[in-house]
Amino acid sequence: MAIKLYYDLMSQPSRTLYILLKSLNCNLELKSVDLRKGEHYSEEFTKVNRMQRVPVIDHNGFVLSESVAIVKYLSRENIIPENLYPRESRLQARVEEFLEWHHVGLRLHCAMYFRVKYMDPILFGRKTDERQIASYERRMVSALEDFNSKWLGRGTPFIVGESVTVADLFAATELEQPRMAGYDPKEHFPVIATWAQKVREFFPHYDEAHVILNKVIAKQSKTSKL
Amino acid sequence: MAIKLYYDLMSQPSRTLYILLKSLNCNLELKSVDLRKGEHYSEEFTKVNRMQRVPVIDHNGFVLSESVAIVKYLSRENIIPENLYPRESRLQARVEEFLEWHHVGLRLHCAMYFRVKYMDPILFGRKTDERQIASYERRMVSALEDFNSKWLGRGTPFIVGESVTVADLFAATELEQPRMAGYDPKEHFPVIATWAQKVREFFPHYDEAHVILNKVIAKQSKTSKL
Repeated sequence: MAIKLYYDLMSQPSRTLYILLKSLNCNLELKSVDLRKGEHYSEEFTKVNRMQRVPVIDHNGFVLSESVAIVKYLSRENIIPENLYPRESRLQARVEEFLEWHHVGLRLHCAMYFRVKYMDPILFGRKTDERQIASYERRMVSALEDFNSKWLGRGTPFIVGESVTVADLFAATELEQPRMAGYDPKEHFPVIATWAQKVREFFPHYDEAHVILNKVIAKQSKTSKL
Repeated sequence: MAIKLYYDLMSQPSRTLYILLKSLNCNLELKSVDLRKGEHYSEEFTKVNRMQRVPVIDHNGFVLSESVAIVKYLSRENIIPENLYPRESRLQARVEEFLEWHHVGLRLHCAMYFRVKYMDPILFGRKTDERQIASYERRMVSALEDFNSKWLGRGTPFIVGESVTVADLFAATELEQPRMAGYDPKEHFPVIATWAQKVREFFPHYDEAHVILNKVIAKQSKTSKL
């Protein structure tokens, strides 16, 4: 069964789906949508997704947006295996409890820090006020503290118990984003660093999905050393 | 089977679960947690939910937070009926697509407007800057425009087709919140007004869950007329 994935590797949930789908044996057709060129606002893409966002999948004509909804759907369709998305009701509920929390509990704060510190100056040609950046950083650090102690650091190596699930992958790709703005959560939270390395090693396409992001970081670090 | 619901009717997702669970034939035990008294920070409640938030359920000893995860779980357990949470995979995906979008697409903006305009002055004893309120209002109105045209206004009376689902109830309780800060979405969007009335009529416990909220609004309107 063919799955088309509309994605941009600069988008965290796009990377999650790219890494997941590439690791499965499915007939995957990759459709790049360049957010920096505004391709998500094009007439052609708006016909695919009226919300003008990536990622989106087209599974045999069924078009679906929202990464978490997509993963749930692909799990029901037996495309995502049980080890990554548990079928047992209570275990599944634990994965979903994290996925629902992460939207505003983790993703929002990492994404906003990235946006105000890295994207806004590029998009609007002006530096963001230092005090404003500090305020976004405080909120992100508080979210990372919650993630570090209330989801990790509870005696098991992964968010839900002893093995990797989609919850870990969603969290890991979000935590890569602020690195482009100069903040690497792994340098501040050893528990996060150990966990992130295990998630990275588990998924064979993890590094491939982060090639562009890592290039941006390398370029930034070179510039800041000049 | 007994379900304990920890809730506060000032919390939007608490109202959603209160309305849903009261309308079903389940053995419901209501456990009020007064957010205004800070009861969610108590040692007793932190033992129930380390995230210190409501709503939470305890279903025969299984404690679960995050309203959307709770509703999914109760649907799998056949406590929420199929008409409100579809079992067919693609229809279920449509409901979940909305639920995942609504966290940051709708809820965040309605909640932040309520917080900065209504709650912050009560909590911190100072009026929020008018320009800041206007900026939060703009973001909320933009979210309401998306909701009005991209989720409603597509030729069917409800978010997912011809009948009410949990998606409608989640959205409706969120849209009540900014009314306490003086903004009623129904007064600005006729499509939303028609839809909201249908959702309200569908659930027998809708008004009961909004008694406290409506009292706050009546008091506000009285004060503003003095």
